[in-house]
Amino acid sequence: MPGYSITKDDYAKRLRRIEGQVRGLQSMMENDAYCIDVLTQIASVTKALQSVGLGLLDEHIRHCVREAAEESGVAGDAKVEEAIAAVARLLKS
Amino acid sequence: MPGYSITKDDYAKRLRRIEGQVRGLQSMMENDAYCIDVLTQIASVTKALQSVGLGLLDEHIRHCVREAAEESGVAGDAKVEEAIAAVARLLKS
Amino acid sequence: MPGYSITKDDYAKRLRRIEGQVRGLQSMMENDAYCIDVLTQIASVTKALQSVGLGLLDEHIRHCVREAAEESGVAGDAKVEEAIAAVARLLKS
Amino acid sequence: MPGYSITKDDYAKRLRRIEGQVRGLQSMMENDAYCIDVLTQIASVTKALQSVGLGLLDEHIRHCVREAAEESGVAGDAKVEEAIAAVARLLKS
Repeated sequence: MPGYSITKDDYAKRLRRIEGQVRGLQSMMENDAYCIDVLTQIASVTKALQSVGLGLLDEHIRHCVREAAEESGVAGDAKVEEAIAAVARLLKS
Repeated sequence: MPGYSITKDDYAKRLRRIEGQVRGLQSMMENDAYCIDVLTQIASVTKALQSVGLGLLDEHIRHCVREAAEESGVAGDAKVEEAIAAVARLLKS
Repeated sequence: MPGYSITKDDYAKRLRRIEGQVRGLQSMMENDAYCIDVLTQIASVTKALQSVGLGLLDEHIRHCVREAAEESGVAGDAKVEEAIAAVARLLKS
Repeated sequence: MPGYSITKDDYAKRLRRIEGQVRGLQSMMENDAYCIDVLTQIASVTKALQSVGLGLLDEHIRHCVREAAEESGVAGDAKVEEAIAAVARLLKS
């Protein structure tokens, strides 16, 4: 299926890869890698994290928000608020 | 009501204010304002725009996504995809 | 010359274009344009603003920071602090 | 000393902490933690990474860019271009 939807296994793989990239950052720093190369790697890790975040947000709206919407208007509104607040935190991070 | 929800009048007011800030940027540049002050103003305009964007996203999920969810699963999925793609563009801008 | 360097006329043109885009946003909202289209336009204006910001930062480091560096170590350090704080504000906006 | 300047030990500590946070994300996902809590943690890791990035950028401008500036105008310009391109990648990540 297209889009941002990711399976649980995919998330595990992506996060292990991100963990490896962060360890890579540590050894770059220990070996006095060139600043700009470290910054490029930081941008890449950040992008990978944001991508995991977008996948989660997709699932969250698809499942939790819609379920709440079907049960009750007020609960659905609270779920939307909560999701938008999470997007705001991602934008400011 | 709490949260990111904004009325149509509020949007109009906010966007007029942002327009004024952009004109302010132009006269800062014409009068050779100090770079850092211009950058601070740019960060402030960007924040104001993102805040309008979050308000729209809130409404969009609250109304369009939920309506689609009630009518049909597939249409709802497409709406969620579309909304997440819009968040991705905001994150990368 | 390559890179982010922009002339004063270019800045004026870009900012007038951004002002026009913000007015475009206002009429989109008045005419009840589709949320996602408005969000796409907001991402585009934000990108244009960030690009102006990067141009200014380029010039600022090229001129102010380097001049200060030549005059005195302490003044140069303060200039670098100030520039990094401006980058931090852009990142969080 | 104030500002974004960080020692090599500090960087190592911060990156180990970030690595721990990414492992925390993995176990949150394994244990089906609530989406919004995972998103909040992702925003926090991103912020920590950006903060390391700003520290590196500070040092980079303070040392590499200024050294290049003293040696030769052209080399200094290239260094500034490179630093601004790195900031652009952080902004878009």
